[in-house]
Amino acid sequence: MKILVLNGPNLNMLGAREVDKYGIMTLDDINKELKSLADTIKVELEIFQSNKESDLVDKIQESLGNFDGILINPAAFTHTSVAIRDAILAVNVPTVEIHLSNVYSREEFRHHSYIAPVCIGQICGFKEDSYLAGLRVLTNYIKK
Amino acid sequence: MKILVLNGPNLNMLGAREVDKYGIMTLDDINKELKSLADTIKVELEIFQSNKESDLVDKIQESLGNFDGILINPAAFTHTSVAIRDAILAVNVPTVEIHLSNVYSREEFRHHSYIAPVCIGQICGFKEDSYLAGLRVLTNYIKK
Amino acid sequence: MKILVLNGPNLNMLGAREVDKYGIMTLDDINKELKSLADTIKVELEIFQSNKESDLVDKIQESLGNFDGILINPAAFTHTSVAIRDAILAVNVPTVEIHLSNVYSREEFRHHSYIAPVCIGQICGFKEDSYLAGLRVLTNYIKK
Amino acid sequence: MKILVLNGPNLNMLGAREVDKYGIMTLDDINKELKSLADTIKVELEIFQSNKESDLVDKIQESLGNFDGILINPAAFTHTSVAIRDAILAVNVPTVEIHLSNVYSREEFRHHSYIAPVCIGQICGFKEDSYLAGLRVLTNYIKK
Amino acid sequence: MKILVLNGPNLNMLGAREVDKYGIMTLDDINKELKSLADTIKVELEIFQSNKESDLVDKIQESLGNFDGILINPAAFTHTSVAIRDAILAVNVPTVEIHLSNVYSREEFRHHSYIAPVCIGQICGFKEDSYLAGLRVLTNYIKK
Amino acid sequence: MKILVLNGPNLNMLGAREVDKYGIMTLDDINKELKSLADTIKVELEIFQSNKESDLVDKIQESLGNFDGILINPAAFTHTSVAIRDAILAVNVPTVEIHLSNVYSREEFRHHSYIAPVCIGQICGFKEDSYLAGLRVLTNYIKK
Amino acid sequence: MKILVLNGPNLNMLGAREVDKYGIMTLDDINKELKSLADTIKVELEIFQSNKESDLVDKIQESLGNFDGILINPAAFTHTSVAIRDAILAVNVPTVEIHLSNVYSREEFRHHSYIAPVCIGQICGFKEDSYLAGLRVLTNYIKK
Amino acid sequence: MKILVLNGPNLNMLGAREVDKYGIMTLDDINKELKSLADTIKVELEIFQSNKESDLVDKIQESLGNFDGILINPAAFTHTSVAIRDAILAVNVPTVEIHLSNVYSREEFRHHSYIAPVCIGQICGFKEDSYLAGLRVLTNYIKK
Amino acid sequence: MKILVLNGPNLNMLGAREVDKYGIMTLDDINKELKSLADTIKVELEIFQSNKESDLVDKIQESLGNFDGILINPAAFTHTSVAIRDAILAVNVPTVEIHLSNVYSREEFRHHSYIAPVCIGQICGFKEDSYLAGLRVLTNYIKK
Amino acid sequence: MKILVLNGPNLNMLGAREVDKYGIMTLDDINKELKSLADTIKVELEIFQSNKESDLVDKIQESLGNFDGILINPAAFTHTSVAIRDAILAVNVPTVEIHLSNVYSREEFRHHSYIAPVCIGQICGFKEDSYLAGLRVLTNYIKK
Amino acid sequence: MKILVLNGPNLNMLGAREVDKYGIMTLDDINKELKSLADTIKVELEIFQSNKESDLVDKIQESLGNFDGILINPAAFTHTSVAIRDAILAVNVPTVEIHLSNVYSREEFRHHSYIAPVCIGQICGFKEDSYLAGLRVLTNYIKK
Amino acid sequence: MKILVLNGPNLNMLGAREVDKYGIMTLDDINKELKSLADTIKVELEIFQSNKESDLVDKIQESLGNFDGILINPAAFTHTSVAIRDAILAVNVPTVEIHLSNVYSREEFRHHSYIAPVCIGQICGFKEDSYLAGLRVLTNYIKK
Repeated sequence: MKILVLNGPNLNMLGAREVDKYGIMTLDDINKELKSLADTIKVELEIFQSNKESDLVDKIQESLGNFDGILINPAAFTHTSVAIRDAILAVNVPTVEIHLSNVYSREEFRHHSYIAPVCIGQICGFKEDSYLAGLRVLTNYIKK
Repeated sequence: MKILVLNGPNLNMLGAREVDKYGIMTLDDINKELKSLADTIKVELEIFQSNKESDLVDKIQESLGNFDGILINPAAFTHTSVAIRDAILAVNVPTVEIHLSNVYSREEFRHHSYIAPVCIGQICGFKEDSYLAGLRVLTNYIKK
Repeated sequence: MKILVLNGPNLNMLGAREVDKYGIMTLDDINKELKSLADTIKVELEIFQSNKESDLVDKIQESLGNFDGILINPAAFTHTSVAIRDAILAVNVPTVEIHLSNVYSREEFRHHSYIAPVCIGQICGFKEDSYLAGLRVLTNYIKK
Repeated sequence: MKILVLNGPNLNMLGAREVDKYGIMTLDDINKELKSLADTIKVELEIFQSNKESDLVDKIQESLGNFDGILINPAAFTHTSVAIRDAILAVNVPTVEIHLSNVYSREEFRHHSYIAPVCIGQICGFKEDSYLAGLRVLTNYIKK
Repeated sequence: MKILVLNGPNLNMLGAREVDKYGIMTLDDINKELKSLADTIKVELEIFQSNKESDLVDKIQESLGNFDGILINPAAFTHTSVAIRDAILAVNVPTVEIHLSNVYSREEFRHHSYIAPVCIGQICGFKEDSYLAGLRVLTNYIKK
Repeated sequence: MKILVLNGPNLNMLGAREVDKYGIMTLDDINKELKSLADTIKVELEIFQSNKESDLVDKIQESLGNFDGILINPAAFTHTSVAIRDAILAVNVPTVEIHLSNVYSREEFRHHSYIAPVCIGQICGFKEDSYLAGLRVLTNYIKK
Repeated sequence: MKILVLNGPNLNMLGAREVDKYGIMTLDDINKELKSLADTIKVELEIFQSNKESDLVDKIQESLGNFDGILINPAAFTHTSVAIRDAILAVNVPTVEIHLSNVYSREEFRHHSYIAPVCIGQICGFKEDSYLAGLRVLTNYIKK
Repeated sequence: MKILVLNGPNLNMLGAREVDKYGIMTLDDINKELKSLADTIKVELEIFQSNKESDLVDKIQESLGNFDGILINPAAFTHTSVAIRDAILAVNVPTVEIHLSNVYSREEFRHHSYIAPVCIGQICGFKEDSYLAGLRVLTNYIKK
Repeated sequence: MKILVLNGPNLNMLGAREVDKYGIMTLDDINKELKSLADTIKVELEIFQSNKESDLVDKIQESLGNFDGILINPAAFTHTSVAIRDAILAVNVPTVEIHLSNVYSREEFRHHSYIAPVCIGQICGFKEDSYLAGLRVLTNYIKK
Repeated sequence: MKILVLNGPNLNMLGAREVDKYGIMTLDDINKELKSLADTIKVELEIFQSNKESDLVDKIQESLGNFDGILINPAAFTHTSVAIRDAILAVNVPTVEIHLSNVYSREEFRHHSYIAPVCIGQICGFKEDSYLAGLRVLTNYIKK
Repeated sequence: MKILVLNGPNLNMLGAREVDKYGIMTLDDINKELKSLADTIKVELEIFQSNKESDLVDKIQESLGNFDGILINPAAFTHTSVAIRDAILAVNVPTVEIHLSNVYSREEFRHHSYIAPVCIGQICGFKEDSYLAGLRVLTNYIKK
Repeated sequence: MKILVLNGPNLNMLGAREVDKYGIMTLDDINKELKSLADTIKVELEIFQSNKESDLVDKIQESLGNFDGILINPAAFTHTSVAIRDAILAVNVPTVEIHLSNVYSREEFRHHSYIAPVCIGQICGFKEDSYLAGLRVLTNYIKK
């Protein structure tokens, strides 16, 4: 089983920024934990981060036929990108949306997601554990 | 570590109802899986379901001093109960909100949760796996 | 044919209260008229009133396999109860929503019903005749 | 007792159209059932259909002094005609609003009625039975 | 100078209806007063009432080249007719909107007019005096 | 008969400002026309302008027992002053609201008036003729 | 192939009115261009204009079995007529909505169409070319 | 004079929870102060707390004929319970709504009360003094 | 302890106006009752009324260092004055907002207060008793 | 005449995706049809697709002086890109907006276009025929 | 060149109040800095502060012919005064709106300005530097 | 002191476009003026323009540790980019938002900024002077 892990804008800054919201881990730390879990549950990962909406759209398009599922933290694009939504609709690969912080206890505009309605489901608020839990439920979903 | 698992109205009907939205498992099936996971990760569970808002409020109040965390699927009360929100605020016990279905791909009124902003986070859309993932992230959160 | 008749909060006060809105009949008077019509059209009735949302949810759940239809005046719960809506969805027993008063000539918040969209239809404004007409159309619907 | 039965736009197409929403009966079929019930309960009917808003306004105006009640299915005009509302207000003849389909489980704009607040009440969702139930409750209302 | 006086739906019922809102005068009474004023200020009137939106649209269209101004009480169509608005825009004949009652102390939906923004101005609340004042200001406007 | 004529903020600038919206007359010019009409119809006028909301409130309060009617152009206060509304409610002297320009063809916020619902009616769009027409309908109203 | 071309209110005034919005052509000019194109692509046309909503509803109803497609410029009715929408739904004849002007650069209320969601598609802004393009795409659609 | 004091959900947790919002007193402390004041002003009290909406509805219904007034802190039910509103309407016993915290400086959803419009008035923000002041104004109201 | 009592616009008209909403007492009557209570609880009062927003702002500014608390009935300014809100914020003197009538059973625009969120709390609906209760809770607050 | 044809995000996936909404043609198929039409009407085309908003902005900027018109299917950017709108405004080259699907029968958020108000017009719903019709009307517009 | 500097309500309290929002400078301190800059750039200043809306309106009116520009910090009146907006429109003197604090990171109601749309531009958030920058850009604007 | 100057999409077109809104200067002209001022006040500048949202996000991220402040004209991204907002939050470098035109006198959607609430402040409407004033206030802010 192959899973594509996508990270949206500013996630490359993790650890360097608002620690109370996002935790002290860097994206590299999270990636290590993710890979360790992937090894345990025998899943192959490709991990990718970009500040470009189009990079994420391209990656989602390329997942068609190459990946069994997508784990995506769209970050700021959650609330603004119809293009990412349409890409997920186009490839129809099972997708899970995750967030480090609890978006529902933040600004009003972060409560709306263009992405969630076209995903299997959403996980938010558990910092790095959002990734780990997301990987587990996604791989379980694909197995069924 | 002791975790209180709370289930809101109509969840006792699981398996007997809308299978495409909620899956074919009964609540008992889910409970068995939850307990099995709890054994593995060495957590004690108390599981409770009620159609009464006040039962859930009472249980949350009683968790103060007796439980280390709450895993709650408030079902219909997600969208209507300020009383449950206030109970969680009052006891200040770490709480995770879960849903079987992806509420963001259903009716507009199901997109708003009174509960989520006072929880650590929210997990929705993964059927029984929402419970299992919820238990994992909650116990991890408490450990840290 | 067996029909479950459900009455929501404060309907036990009928006759003692706002007569211009609800008429001078008590709930007992209405029940007598309902039973008399039920005898005529050869339908068995169980009639129930409660001020508790959970009682109504429980009754609706129990109707599964035991009743052919539900006639419900949800009263105040019309505008606030997602739990009753979900219970009707869960049992999928044909249901008719009735109101004594014309909710559309009252306060704005009474114009919205969580229940109506999951019912066969709605009847409002005809005082006790809302019940009698509701029983007739419900039994006709079941026959077809 | 004389009752005016009014049918709004496109109801002349009944039976030829969306059968799942409106049933397979034609307007003639419904009229026959209505007349049969009218005979039984000794009520005189005049039945009228038009695609013109002004025809319905004229008919309502003419009801003053000539009819004891109005049974109206305003169809599309329900949501757009202040003129019909004002006509009912002007003649002050007891009026019942009916609909074949359950407007509350259809498009958002069909949830609002300009007509309902100036009627005794509203019945919707029971196909031809909406007419029959409407005739019964209207005649009962007039008798009282 | 020739002025076209247009009256919308249900105004033919004046005097027979809600006297507190519209006064006890009939449309004929108002017309007599209007004609008397017209004679005094040497203006020729054509007065027309219809319950049909299209009649009013037709009349407005015909005013082009035949009338110097339009005095219109659109009644219910005030709030629903884009067609009348477009007709006034098309002929570009100076138009004054009048109402018998004070629409701003009635239902919310009567506060919005599709017609007012394409008129010189609006007069409301003075019963028959709305017509007389309207005729005066319209003829003054045309003279200037 | 004594009429109080009140002018709100910036009306002292008339003639010096946006001529296309308000005409080229100064407030003095309008006052002269108003007085001339008042002489003709045998009405006594007191005319007052202020940029202060409280001056207008004071004047309205003093009208109680001293004036038979109020003709008010609240200008900017139309859209912001609950105090003027409450003063009119308190003295209960018949009041007519007038505007030089057609407020319904200007900015959205000018479409709402706190004053209109507590007046007999409103006249807008006819420049100085709004005042003259207002005086006529107000005195007629008081006579009846 | 037979196509019904329907024109809504005030389109008979074309050429006589707002030339910057609608162009200098009259409806007759447009009809000639349409017929010329129809001859070229071997389509039979019936062209009809009315200021009456009910005329358009009647024509749409009559199209059932008599026409293969409808090309409609509903003009003002675009924004107000549920009756035309329901008629199109009832006959289920392929329909294309066209507008001379770009409704999206005009008043806010012109951005909403009751008709568009029940059509194949919409074309707006190209003056007479909206008709010609509409005829082409409609006939192509029917052929496929 | 007999007064019924009602406390809604989570008020049994007072003193154990968010001290900055609600003060450090327990509900028992407040009750003692209330009873002391009641003795002073010679009023009989019955005090009741419940987390159940239906308990509060039942108590309000029972007040009819047994109590002269109701002092209610509906807590979370303030914002969600039409049933409590309807119960107060049904018994028509003078009622005062009180809150410990200033609801207008908290979350937006706490600014709306279903209960306030059917009460004599509302007091909020003064912690235990809200109860004492409420008892005083209620008994004064009943005396007059 | 020194308390500043502020009364907003039109409160000087009390007793002369809408008796059902505000009671038959004049402001002088209320002031006498207030002073009598102030004597009893040993508080010094300065009482001030103005129809001018700026007078109230000035008084609030002057309270800094001169008064221990402010009791304010902002009347119409409740809903429109950010300046009074900012003045209270600037001096940071404990303030209580009071109203004679129950603003929540009146027009929609009276449900919103710019002042309440920057006060300790709000009391409304108890006529003169709103003042007396307000004085009590304010002085208690200051003592603590 | 030179026309720039721009395609927004995910249109490179055409044919591989939701066939009921977008048809079975690939973008290459559409391009072939477009070029064939371009040859017929003697127009030169440059066709470009990108998932990057900035690519489309760059291309629009470069069109200044190099192209006579733009045919754009902004896809997801229709609803989110002010940058594309501003680019069109900046170059002021005649532009036509097209869509494969009928955006007005899809999700609410697809009903709003940032692009349409700055274009000549919009065509939607006709699959590949939207492109062909768009090319025709655009070239006709440029010729005039 | 002569510039009128206007300060709205509560700005006389600067330095005595919320230092984190407005800085520790008093209005006198700011005025000194302003005058110093004015000397440098050879501009004559008149500086004025008032808590009265009408004072500001009067000053703006007097600026006509006497001042070349207005620098205004309307403070609380920013969000509530149509009168000040209308005064600026009436005199048509170039005006710059300034704020000490960043209004866009404060309460929602502070995000809307009645004044900004009739000014050259707006500067907010830079404490006393908002004044200095405002004076510079205003004088530059006038020079051009 | 080092300042990063960022320019959003289409600003490279300055001077070539809508001159009434943006002035006749090109971005190069503005840059020259900015550098001249920077020399005077001894500040080092890096100036950057891009039509890509991600370029701006990258540049903001790189500013961490390399620049003392950011001067940004986000242009169209002001209203659509949560990613830029999040980048500013992540680096927490003092930022000033500037606009050439007065966004508050343009389309409604330009009144909302995602960027302003995370900046020190905002300057708009003064064409190139917005940049110069922005540089001054930013450097002053950093010095303090």
